[in-house]
Amino acid sequence: MLGMFCVLCSGSGLMGFRAAPLVRSLHSFPGIIVAQIDEEVAKLLELKAQIGGDNGKHQFVLKTAKGTRDYNPKQMAVRERVFSTIIGCFKRHGAETIDTPVFELKETLTGKYGEDSKLIYDLKDQGGELLSLRYDLTVPFARYLAMNKITNIKRYHIAKVYRRDNPAMTRGRYREFYQCDFDIAGQYDAMIPDAECLKIVYEILSGLDLGDFRIKVNDRRILDGMFAVCGVPDDKFRTICSTVDKLDKMPWEDVRKEMVNEKGLSEEAADQIGDYVSLQGGMDLAERLLQDQKMSRSKQACAGLSDIKLLFTYLQLFQVTDKVVFDLSLARGLDYYTGIIYEAVLTQAGVAPVSTEAQNGAPAEESVSVGSVAGGGRYDGLVGMFDPKGRKVPCVGVSIGIERIFSIMEQKAEASAEKVRTTEVQVMVASAQKNLLEERLQLVTELWNAGIKAEVMYKKNPKLLSQLQHCEESGIPLVAILGEQELKDGVVKLRVVASREEVDVSRAALIEEIRRRTSEA
Amino acid sequence: MLGMFCVLCSGSGLMGFRAAPLVRSLHSFPGIIVAQIDEEVAKLLELKAQIGGDNGKHQFVLKTAKGTRDYNPKQMAVRERVFSTIIGCFKRHGAETIDTPVFELKETLTGKYGEDSKLIYDLKDQGGELLSLRYDLTVPFARYLAMNKITNIKRYHIAKVYRRDNPAMTRGRYREFYQCDFDIAGQYDAMIPDAECLKIVYEILSGLDLGDFRIKVNDRRILDGMFAVCGVPDDKFRTICSTVDKLDKMPWEDVRKEMVNEKGLSEEAADQIGDYVSLQGGMDLAERLLQDQKMSRSKQACAGLSDIKLLFTYLQLFQVTDKVVFDLSLARGLDYYTGIIYEAVLTQAGVAPVSTEAQNGAPAEESVSVGSVAGGGRYDGLVGMFDPKGRKVPCVGVSIGIERIFSIMEQKAEASAEKVRTTEVQVMVASAQKNLLEERLQLVTELWNAGIKAEVMYKKNPKLLSQLQHCEESGIPLVAILGEQELKDGVVKLRVVASREEVDVSRAALIEEIRRRTSEA
Repeated sequence: MLGMFCVLCSGSGLMGFRAAPLVRSLHSFPGIIVAQIDEEVAKLLELKAQIGGDNGKHQFVLKTAKGTRDYNPKQMAVRERVFSTIIGCFKRHGAETIDTPVFELKETLTGKYGEDSKLIYDLKDQGGELLSLRYDLTVPFARYLAMNKITNIKRYHIAKVYRRDNPAMTRGRYREFYQCDFDIAGQYDAMIPDAECLKIVYEILSGLDLGDFRIKVNDRRILDGMFAVCGVPDDKFRTICSTVDKLDKMPWEDVRKEMVNEKGLSEEAADQIGDYVSLQGGMDLAERLLQDQKMSRSKQACAGLSDIKLLFTYLQLFQVTDKVVFDLSLARGLDYYTGIIYEAVLTQAGVAPVSTEAQNGAPAEESVSVGSVAGGGRYDGLVGMFDPKGRKVPCVGVSIGIERIFSIMEQKAEASAEKVRTTEVQVMVASAQKNLLEERLQLVTELWNAGIKAEVMYKKNPKLLSQLQHCEESGIPLVAILGEQELKDGVVKLRVVASREEVDVSRAALIEEIRRRTSEA
Repeated sequence: MLGMFCVLCSGSGLMGFRAAPLVRSLHSFPGIIVAQIDEEVAKLLELKAQIGGDNGKHQFVLKTAKGTRDYNPKQMAVRERVFSTIIGCFKRHGAETIDTPVFELKETLTGKYGEDSKLIYDLKDQGGELLSLRYDLTVPFARYLAMNKITNIKRYHIAKVYRRDNPAMTRGRYREFYQCDFDIAGQYDAMIPDAECLKIVYEILSGLDLGDFRIKVNDRRILDGMFAVCGVPDDKFRTICSTVDKLDKMPWEDVRKEMVNEKGLSEEAADQIGDYVSLQGGMDLAERLLQDQKMSRSKQACAGLSDIKLLFTYLQLFQVTDKVVFDLSLARGLDYYTGIIYEAVLTQAGVAPVSTEAQNGAPAEESVSVGSVAGGGRYDGLVGMFDPKGRKVPCVGVSIGIERIFSIMEQKAEASAEKVRTTEVQVMVASAQKNLLEERLQLVTELWNAGIKAEVMYKKNPKLLSQLQHCEESGIPLVAILGEQELKDGVVKLRVVASREEVDVSRAALIEEIRRRTSEA
C-alpha cells in the first residue's frame, strides 16, 4: 500500500526521497507511521554514531557555545552589584520570587512568540517528552499561574533565557542572557499596578546611575484604534504594527516605504499614521487626542487614552513624570500585549556599546530600540491560553534589559580607577618566618570561627613579599602577621595594606580590632 | 557495494535494519555516508512533521518537564536562606565566583563521565554547533581554566545541572538540580587546600543545623594500592571500585557476591578486600596501615596513607576531627578523582526523605550514600584533558548536595510553627475610609523613596479588614493607616499587626519610627 522507498541504495548512491506524494495516504494511520519513522531515525543515528558521527568533520575547539560567554570573577562582581540594586527595588515593592525549570514542554512555548518561534532552542528527542529551552520568563510565569490556579501574585524572576538569534556579543546581545522580570497578576483597579511598574523602572535606572533616561509609554488599544481610523485593514494591524515598531531604528520615510511597498498599505493611510506617530507628550496629549475628531471615533483608542490620563495621574503621585513620555510611535513586537506598553531608553550620548546596536541588520522582533534597557506592558490574555477553561488572569509587568546594563557597568568599571574586588576577604594571615604553618592555620581557624573573612596561603613557607603582593592584588585591607616574637608576646602584628602602618594587637583583642577596622568596608 | 536496505517497505511493513554488518565497510568513507544519513534523517523528520508529528499521540498537559519542578515563593525563601549560609561560608574562605553557560559544546562533555554519559541532555541539531546541557559544574570549570590559561583560583559556582536520570522527586532527586561547588585550583603544598575543603563542609553542615554528620575520607591511591595487593587484576580496578562504592547501600555479602559472580574476581581477592573495607579510624588507622605487611608493599597506597596522616594534622588545627573518619570503604564513582576523596553523611535518624533514598534501584554512579549531603575530592588530571599541550592544573573541590538539604529544610519549615515569610515588606499603607487612594500613593512613594519596603493595595477603596488580613497572611509587621483626621492632624496611625497596638506618629517622624521598629527584624 505504501510506495517502497529506499534510504540508501546500493551502487546508485542516494535516491530521491518521494515523501510529498505519500503524505496524504500516510495521514490515514499516523500513529503507526510516526512510530516507524522514529525507529528508523534512531537506527540511522546509531549507524552514524558507529561510523564516527560528525567527528571526522571538525577538530575539538576549546570554546563556549556560539553566542554564550563565561562570567569571570570581575564580571560576576559587577553582575552581583547590579542584581543587588534591582532585587533591592523589587523587594522594596513587596515582590516575592519564584523559579521555573530552564526547559519547558515544547507545547508550552508553541504559539506564543509568532515568527520568533524559529529562535527557540529544542532539546534532542532522546525518548520521553519533547522539550525546549525557555525563550523568556513571561510564558513560564503564565504557565505557572495557570497550573497552580494562582489569581494574584506580585513576583520577580531573575534567570537566563535562550534565543537562537544572531549574537552581537560586544553589544550585549547573547544567545544565553539574563532577564529580570517583575510582574503583577490580579484583577485590580485600572492603572495602579501599571503605574507601579513604571515607578520600578524609574527607581532601578536611577539607582544604577546609568545617566539620563526616558520611559516611553503607549497603549495597544490606542495603536489599534489609530490603525482603524487611518484606514488600515483589520488583517494588517499586526504587520503594520511591527513596521511602526521600527521607527526607533529607521527614519519615517523608510518606515512609510515599507508600509506602502512591502505591506501594501495605501499612501493615504500611511501618511495619516505618519501624522500620529510623530506625536509625543504627556497627559495633555492624551486629552488632545480624546478631542481629536478622527481618533475619538475609535472606542478602543478612547479607552486607551483615558487610561493613559489615569496613568499619568498616578505617575505624578509616584513623582516620576519627569522621565515619562506618551509616545505614539512606541509599538513593541510581542503579540501578547493587550493594553499599556512601555520601554525605557538611555538618552545620554557616549554609551557606545548600545548606541551602535541598530546597525547589524535583522533585529529580533522584541529586540528593542537604540539604548533600550527595559520594557514591558499589560498582557491580560496569556494566562487564559493555558487555563483549560480559558479563565483570564490580568497581568502587567516589566523586564529589565540586564545584559546591556552589564555591558555599560563593565565599561564603567574598566574606565574608572577604582579596582573591582572579587572577594570580600578582610584579612590575610601571614608569617615572616619559616615553619609557622601550624600557627597560621590555628589563627585563621580562630578568625573563621568568629565569622571573619580570612585567607592563608597554601604553602608551608610562603615569602612575606608574595603574601603582601596577594593582598595588594586582591584588595585585602589587612594582614595579620605572625612571627616568633609575636607568638612569644601573645600578639599579632596587624598591618594596614594601604598605609603600610603596623601595630601589635593582643591575640584576645584581634577579632574586635579586625571588625572595627573593616566595618565601613 | 553497500547492501540495499529499505526503511519503509510496502505491504510487509517494517523490515529489519541490517546496520551492524555494514558499519565496517561504511568506515571507508564516513564523510559521505554521514552526510547522507543526516539528509535522510531530516527528510524522515519532515515527513513526520507533515503527518502531524507526535501531536496525535497525546493531549496538551499543563505541567513542568519530567523530573523538574517550579520553586514557589516559600521554597524560594528556604532556598535563599540555605544559599546565604553556603555563600557566606565560601566568601569567608575568600572564594571568588564564576558562571558558565548552561550548555557546552557536546565534545566538551564527551569522555568525562564514563557510563553516565547516557544521562547527558543533548540539544537538537538545529544547524550550527552540537550542544549538551552541563552535567556538572566540574567539567565546565576545568574547561574554563584551560581556555583562559588560569593556573590558580579559588572559586565557587552555584548553578543548575542536568541529568536524564530516573527522578525520585519526593526524595530530592531531580533531572534539573542545583550544585554548589567550591574548588581550589593550583600547585600548592600537599593537603592544605584539601583540608580547607573539609573545613568548609564542616562549617556549612554545622551552619545549616541539619543534625549530626560524619565526613568520610579516603584516597584513590589507597584504593588502587589495596586492589593491587589484594590481587585484583589491573584492568578490573575501576569496575571493582564501583562495586565497593555500593557498600553504603548494600551489605558486604551482596557486594562480595557481585565482585565474584558478576565481575569475575577470585574469592580470595574479594575476602582480602573485605577485610580492608571494614576498617574505619583516624590518623592512627593510617599509621597502622603504613605498617601493614601487605598494604605497605604498594608505593601508591603508602603515598595515600602518608597524605591521610598529613590531612589529619591539618584537620586538627582546623578543629574538625570530631566529625571526620578515615573509611576504606569510601570509593566514589567519578573516574576523574586522583587523590583524596570525601563524602559527608547525615547520621541522625528521622531524616525521612533522605534515608529511603537507596531503595529505588539503579542509582547513578555519582549518586551518593544514604543521607549523603556533600562530596568531592582531588582531580589533578581533568584540566589537562582540555589543554592542547596537556598541561595539568591540580584541583581539589567539594560539591554540596543542595537539593537534599532543601528537602530537609522545607520539611523542617513545614513542621515548625514559625511561618516562612516570602516578602520583606515592613509596612502596609492603608486607609480606613474611601477616596484616599491619592493620599495612600503619596505616602507609599515617600516610604519607597526613603528605602522602606512598603506595599499598598491596588484598589481605589479597599476595605480596612482586607488590608489588615493581607498583613497577617504575609507577615507584614506594621500598618500605616491614613484617615481624614490623621491627614488633618499631620499624623499617621501606626498599627503593630501582632499586638494590634496603635499610635499616632507625626508624618515627619514616620520613617524613623518604621526603621526603629523593624530594625531587629
